[in-house]
Amino acid sequence: MTNFDIIVVGSGPGGYVAAIRAAQLGFNTAVVEKERLGGICLNWGCIPTKALLKSAQVYNYLMHAEDYGVDLAEKPQANIEKMVQRSRGVADTMNKGIQYLLKKNNVTIIEGFGKLKPGNIVEVKSAEGELADYSAKHIILATGARSRQLPNLPQDGKKIIGYREAMTLPFQPKSMVVVGSGAIGSEFAFFYQSIGTAVTLVEFLPSILPNEDLDSSTQVNRSFKKMGMKTMSSASVESVDTTGDICKVSVQSKKGVEIIEAEIVLSAVGVQTNLEGIGLEETGVKFERGKVFVDDFYKTNIEGVYAIGDIVHGPALAHVASAEALVCVEKIAGQNPSPVNYGNIPGCTYTSPEVASVGLTEKAAEEQGLEYIIGKFPYTASGKATASGSRDGFVKIIIDKNTGHILGAHIVGDNATEMIAELVVARQNKLTAKQIMHSIHPHPTLSEAVMEAIANAYGEAVHL
Amino acid sequence: MTNFDIIVVGSGPGGYVAAIRAAQLGFNTAVVEKERLGGICLNWGCIPTKALLKSAQVYNYLMHAEDYGVDLAEKPQANIEKMVQRSRGVADTMNKGIQYLLKKNNVTIIEGFGKLKPGNIVEVKSAEGELADYSAKHIILATGARSRQLPNLPQDGKKIIGYREAMTLPFQPKSMVVVGSGAIGSEFAFFYQSIGTAVTLVEFLPSILPNEDLDSSTQVNRSFKKMGMKTMSSASVESVDTTGDICKVSVQSKKGVEIIEAEIVLSAVGVQTNLEGIGLEETGVKFERGKVFVDDFYKTNIEGVYAIGDIVHGPALAHVASAEALVCVEKIAGQNPSPVNYGNIPGCTYTSPEVASVGLTEKAAEEQGLEYIIGKFPYTASGKATASGSRDGFVKIIIDKNTGHILGAHIVGDNATEMIAELVVARQNKLTAKQIMHSIHPHPTLSEAVMEAIANAYGEAVHL
Repeated sequence: MTNFDIIVVGSGPGGYVAAIRAAQLGFNTAVVEKERLGGICLNWGCIPTKALLKSAQVYNYLMHAEDYGVDLAEKPQANIEKMVQRSRGVADTMNKGIQYLLKKNNVTIIEGFGKLKPGNIVEVKSAEGELADYSAKHIILATGARSRQLPNLPQDGKKIIGYREAMTLPFQPKSMVVVGSGAIGSEFAFFYQSIGTAVTLVEFLPSILPNEDLDSSTQVNRSFKKMGMKTMSSASVESVDTTGDICKVSVQSKKGVEIIEAEIVLSAVGVQTNLEGIGLEETGVKFERGKVFVDDFYKTNIEGVYAIGDIVHGPALAHVASAEALVCVEKIAGQNPSPVNYGNIPGCTYTSPEVASVGLTEKAAEEQGLEYIIGKFPYTASGKATASGSRDGFVKIIIDKNTGHILGAHIVGDNATEMIAELVVARQNKLTAKQIMHSIHPHPTLSEAVMEAIANAYGEAVHL
Repeated sequence: MTNFDIIVVGSGPGGYVAAIRAAQLGFNTAVVEKERLGGICLNWGCIPTKALLKSAQVYNYLMHAEDYGVDLAEKPQANIEKMVQRSRGVADTMNKGIQYLLKKNNVTIIEGFGKLKPGNIVEVKSAEGELADYSAKHIILATGARSRQLPNLPQDGKKIIGYREAMTLPFQPKSMVVVGSGAIGSEFAFFYQSIGTAVTLVEFLPSILPNEDLDSSTQVNRSFKKMGMKTMSSASVESVDTTGDICKVSVQSKKGVEIIEAEIVLSAVGVQTNLEGIGLEETGVKFERGKVFVDDFYKTNIEGVYAIGDIVHGPALAHVASAEALVCVEKIAGQNPSPVNYGNIPGCTYTSPEVASVGLTEKAAEEQGLEYIIGKFPYTASGKATASGSRDGFVKIIIDKNTGHILGAHIVGDNATEMIAELVVARQNKLTAKQIMHSIHPHPTLSEAVMEAIANAYGEAVHL
């Protein structure tokens, strides 16, 4: 039986990062993957969706080319086949990149489905059904998650689909109902609406992007409606009739039950973790409600078994999985890493306008009884946004009245997902809002809006 | 004679910021402007050029629409007339914004040319030639700068032009020689080349963008050449023969003298300050080589007279002028502002790829005998850059080997001008590079490249 120092089960942004870092630190490392290296994020998530959204952005520029002084004889046509092809190409490039990195770092790649067995063993079942056992002093489970199935939205992969099918549709549907308005649902709703599909976005909670600050939700809702999308909140899908050519979706809202017709229904109601058949029960690894119990350094209750990523507590995000991977492996190596600061995880939605946030929403700050002041700066007052023709958006900063620290930051608009990094670094290192404000931001940039939003909180904004 | 608490002479990003902040702090304030409110930056600099560059970006997307899965029946046409019109519209919008802000803050706007007179008086000469005197306890000079004239490049505004004409050309020249490859020269060279003009960029110093790190210059030079631009460094324009239809530009380089033909020659060899006729000599305000002497709070040698912006030491940048304005006014108000940290001023060039930097170049760090380590991360390894189709670029971080602080940061590529803010804030607040690295950057973003570049310096980069 081949023995390793560390075996990582799963090669997503938790698993492959753990494997590469482990190899860097001198461990003889293997990674087990049943499908494609890079996991969902790289093959079916973050990366290929960003490629599609870039295509949508380019298409949108073309539709408004005249506004920018570019003459077009004819209207452009969105070609979904080519867009999907490009997106798959991007995923392939990144997948090959991970392959290269693992090999470069001498990580052994074991293809197949990994299952934990007692005695620090991973049994791997190949595609052909052959079994092989591998042992390791440390086994890191990073098996990730998949699209959640709801009983009233049974995915058939044709008419009722999940995110995988949504990013590889062979044709552009004329109409679509998207159920769930988290990042995944909102991004697909935006993508399809922007290339000409008539989209209805249905959200169970009272506002779309329900995890975001209400101001962010409101702004995105306004932008979505402006582009012709229908959005429904406090609404739930009761059932879908897929017997005819067109799906008939029964949506219950305050107005009663409404039947919405659509070619395609996309279920984007969250993810469920991949804990089935990986040997948790057999080895006695404790888990509950889809999450494995771990300590601050991702040790499970079983000696030598660790878990990271979507299958442990915390938000199911790629950057969280990667951060956990580093902490887990560095701790195994006897280093002294700081635990992941779950209070400072940024969240991003790559619609247009983009949405990014870190820390508390205003509602949460209020509910926690904190004393805070708020500063806001609209993109309409930004020179860079005006020059770019992207004046939809704002920066909102929630500041602790007593300490001056940033309780929460919410950005909607062009480049929000990049601008949030500055606030993440500031919060992580306990800088005050004024310490950001007194750093000279270059002109003209959107990042000035962060500085101005803080100034606004203190009644010092020049451009408002 | 009308009396004010504060009179600001000039309404650029130094002047208008000083006036608005002064009014916020309760001063009865006036601003004197001979031309358009907002100064060069807003009317003839930062803002309208960014509008043109956005048009170029959109045109570029259209030229590559097929790559993104958008079908176009015919090739797009760059319409410079409409691009200029849009750019002027953007400048008008921002100009009206400043007008609104000044009025809202009850700042008195005095139209005309301001001249300092003894006894804290500003004499304003209107366009009609009428003179009026105004007095103030504090007079802030913020008269800015203009395009520098060189004897061998006499600007006639038709064939040999400066930046003003370059952003309002009534036609698209077939060929252009741009002299000077600082931010202004490089941005125009990029703009015209990208819409189809054959551009030759001539730089006197050994590399284009001579103030930037050599790696940045090299990358931009490569990108410029890829788009078909001719770049010449260590080269100087000896003379221009404008007698014929086409300008004949004599360029001296290592190869000898070369004659380059071009419809238009753009002189972008820097700026010279506006100190003529503003009463410095008459009132005894000390200045030398185009710069007024000031202390850390912008007081000149004459009581009650201050100077900020391009006419004092430090880089001639809008964000520097604005920062100086705040410090100057807050000090007058008896507050205790920290002096501007001239070691932490970001610089941006909005070409494609964009260039941004803060702190020392590698060469400067070496010359200062500092012990440093370097981390670099190429955009080719970034998932977001790959998904966006913008893989030209890198992040380079120079770290003090002993303290772990960031000596310099250099970013080339998509979004560089926005990403630099994070590093500005970190440097301003003496965070170590590792403190940035341990802040969880969202995935997938370009900002991850900052984190990875730092990790690379410590041999910990996962994606390299």
